[in-house]
Amino acid sequence: MPQGKVESVPQDGLTTRQRRNQPVLAVHTGPGKGKSTAAFGMAMRAWNQGFDIGVFQFVKSAKWKVGEEQTMLALNELHERTGVGGPVEWHKMGQGWSWLRRTDGAEQDHAEAARDGWREIARRLSAEQHRFYVLDEFTYPLKWGWIDVDEVVETLRARPGNQHVIITGRDAPQALMDAADLVTEMTKVRHPMDAGRKGQRGIEW
Amino acid sequence: MPQGKVESVPQDGLTTRQRRNQPVLAVHTGPGKGKSTAAFGMAMRAWNQGFDIGVFQFVKSAKWKVGEEQTMLALNELHERTGVGGPVEWHKMGQGWSWLRRTDGAEQDHAEAARDGWREIARRLSAEQHRFYVLDEFTYPLKWGWIDVDEVVETLRARPGNQHVIITGRDAPQALMDAADLVTEMTKVRHPMDAGRKGQRGIEW
Repeated sequence: MPQGKVESVPQDGLTTRQRRNQPVLAVHTGPGKGKSTAAFGMAMRAWNQGFDIGVFQFVKSAKWKVGEEQTMLALNELHERTGVGGPVEWHKMGQGWSWLRRTDGAEQDHAEAARDGWREIARRLSAEQHRFYVLDEFTYPLKWGWIDVDEVVETLRARPGNQHVIITGRDAPQALMDAADLVTEMTKVRHPMDAGRKGQRGIEW
Repeated sequence: MPQGKVESVPQDGLTTRQRRNQPVLAVHTGPGKGKSTAAFGMAMRAWNQGFDIGVFQFVKSAKWKVGEEQTMLALNELHERTGVGGPVEWHKMGQGWSWLRRTDGAEQDHAEAARDGWREIARRLSAEQHRFYVLDEFTYPLKWGWIDVDEVVETLRARPGNQHVIITGRDAPQALMDAADLVTEMTKVRHPMDAGRKGQRGIEW
């Protein structure tokens, strides 16, 4: 079990406490399972510390990860009613971000929707709106060139205060990994779908 | 995003639904972070489906993962009060399993404690007591020879009903991985401790 042993102490003029309380940028990437799931597991810890949590899912289907969403929203209700834990906001691109209610019924271009999502996150980072952000599946709009990686890295580097950001998705751009404090790659060793099994209730969603 | 595409359909005489509802044995191993965290993220999904959850932590220190524990127990209370989600039991080896209250004050041998934990889990599997089990850090007593791997694999293979089991920890024995439906290896790419930073509130616990 990890016991918090550090491998080297940097000459950065910071005390252990100052260094400890630096904001974390974590990236969960790789072809295996558990990237988002581990991010939501981290959100459970953050919730228990009373952190304000913002989840932003860059996914097309609103059906995916409904289990985590329902549970995190249950934790938000518990917080609102009892004061235990922290507040949770859950936003998804799905049928359009909640803060952009289109009245013309037109379907938004996905690249445009992804950029709208990122702009909102950048605004919130600047305003220190949340303490813990999950940018779920955010590597895809970066990979597809919809959002500029360098701008994202610069915005994350310049974010004020102590805001933690967890980014998930395959094929994280190198510049993003270089900027991260914590990068974990999930490797698929074996998956039930290899044996012709589809996802199931309580396991996949 | 995964769309549930299967790579091959096995000739096992099962319908897709039968195959889908087979119990899952998952192993999260490797030197990277996220093994336990992803298991607890899965537990959030299981909770949302109303599954009965049993967590068994094979750890010495009771301080570790207190964030996940508090949050899962908050979800259990929410279930008890409102009926939403499922019940959660959380057991840890720490200062001794809760079902073994030693009155003689003697400290239990760790190997013996680990074996006691496994015997209780085997009993519960046989009784179909839970629907979703997390055996956290369970690879260590296997690795150290405290618990017989073949017996574990045989007990898991023979478990009745539809009980999902998630096992976490480094260096999972090959026989366990061979028996698993889902194996994910978490690889460490970069960790803040490399840069002399210790764990922090809301991120590490």
